[in-house]
Amino acid sequence: MSESQAKPPKIVTAAILVIGNEILSGRTKDANLHYLATGLTAIGIRLMEARVVPDIAARIIEAVNALRGQYDYVFTTGGIGPTHDDITSESVTRAFGVKLIKHPKAVELLTQHYGDANLTEARLRMAHVPEGASLIDNPVSTAPGFRVGNVYVLAGVPAICQAMFDGLKGGLSRGDPVHSKTVSAHVGEGVIAKDLGALQQRYPGLDIGSYPFFRQGKFGASFVIRGTDEEMIGQAAAELRSIIRALNADPIEGETPA
Amino acid sequence: MSESQAKPPKIVTAAILVIGNEILSGRTKDANLHYLATGLTAIGIRLMEARVVPDIAARIIEAVNALRGQYDYVFTTGGIGPTHDDITSESVTRAFGVKLIKHPKAVELLTQHYGDANLTEARLRMAHVPEGASLIDNPVSTAPGFRVGNVYVLAGVPAICQAMFDGLKGGLSRGDPVHSKTVSAHVGEGVIAKDLGALQQRYPGLDIGSYPFFRQGKFGASFVIRGTDEEMIGQAAAELRSIIRALNADPIEGETPA
Repeated sequence: MSESQAKPPKIVTAAILVIGNEILSGRTKDANLHYLATGLTAIGIRLMEARVVPDIAARIIEAVNALRGQYDYVFTTGGIGPTHDDITSESVTRAFGVKLIKHPKAVELLTQHYGDANLTEARLRMAHVPEGASLIDNPVSTAPGFRVGNVYVLAGVPAICQAMFDGLKGGLSRGDPVHSKTVSAHVGEGVIAKDLGALQQRYPGLDIGSYPFFRQGKFGASFVIRGTDEEMIGQAAAELRSIIRALNADPIEGETPA
Repeated sequence: MSESQAKPPKIVTAAILVIGNEILSGRTKDANLHYLATGLTAIGIRLMEARVVPDIAARIIEAVNALRGQYDYVFTTGGIGPTHDDITSESVTRAFGVKLIKHPKAVELLTQHYGDANLTEARLRMAHVPEGASLIDNPVSTAPGFRVGNVYVLAGVPAICQAMFDGLKGGLSRGDPVHSKTVSAHVGEGVIAKDLGALQQRYPGLDIGSYPFFRQGKFGASFVIRGTDEEMIGQAAAELRSIIRALNADPIEGETPA
């Protein structure tokens, strides 16, 4: 194997916790997981797990504690609004075993946004965070998210969740970037599988995935080679093209057109 | 509270386990979670949790065992194809601590579909299931899923996953159907929150969710009342309409138009 394997890549990991009955009942189609997955991958952070749990404190606490102990970062979405079913802040606070406090800066932001007269008790709930938390900017509708330890608590409304993430991502530790190369072909997965498995074995430092498709009446598969060593990816891709040609098919660079 | 609370509803629960690096890297947008969530809800089964894990045996085994012990049904998607990265069958087999066997009926189906000459060793991998498993029909591309214990192993390709689920769902135990009623209004969540919380407290047997929206330049929220007792839902909805009117807004039946 190449020498670059001697130096292990810097790996930074993350998990996502989607909180909300509406996702589990099917009422709402989650839009945040894919956005965060793509955004984390783009900055060299490996999303290792995602969970969806209902608006039940015990389930949120259990998931937050399971994930924050296992991964470098945890991002939660949902449950930080002003209504009775928004229980993420209290639950995360309990997961950390700290006190729930009214954050002075959050109160100030909400007062500016709503005005004293309209700052209802319910809206003030959105200023409550775990003791020691720092606020996450909400450029869309003011009410902030927060970070406590390695847990980032974001809104569920996609436009707000995404704006919060875009604002905070510059401050995250990045791992070595993961590069990928996709080669597709009109070959059956079951025909190429043996050679593909052998290719994976020759490149244990890379991660080779096979994704079948059926488009415009033709079946085939896209093969995605991922890893931190671009040169090694290039070598594996060259071997893959040879494998495809040996099966009397043409390697197509990238995903096949839809 | 009404007498119907005396009789506890029959509750049947489920979890979904999405298996695949491609979802976590953002390459692929999961389409199965929402389909299964909607399908389960429609037949009175409560989806209580979903997880997404990578193609790593230890993570699959851990998740399968955590979920199958906690919920009545577990549905997995992905990782049952013929390539080296398809490790769901082996992993589920290890989770159950049984032997991986070649299922005679699966071999027969694959032989019919591919013909003897094209039934590669890789394709034969798709006939491997945990000992004691029964097959799940794949009307799209033949290679079957399987059920072992309370775990249903489905394909990841959405058309196949969905066809497998549609074929098997008639055989699942159903809980009492969960009904829901949605009333929307152009009111701020922070304005209605107090009354809404009190309404939830008056109806502990129901589950009242509040989902803010911003459409056509107007903000508001949809309030979803869910439960097994339709009469009780009707009463709570009537009270909710009164609450909305008392705030000088008009209750809108259903979700607001997009």
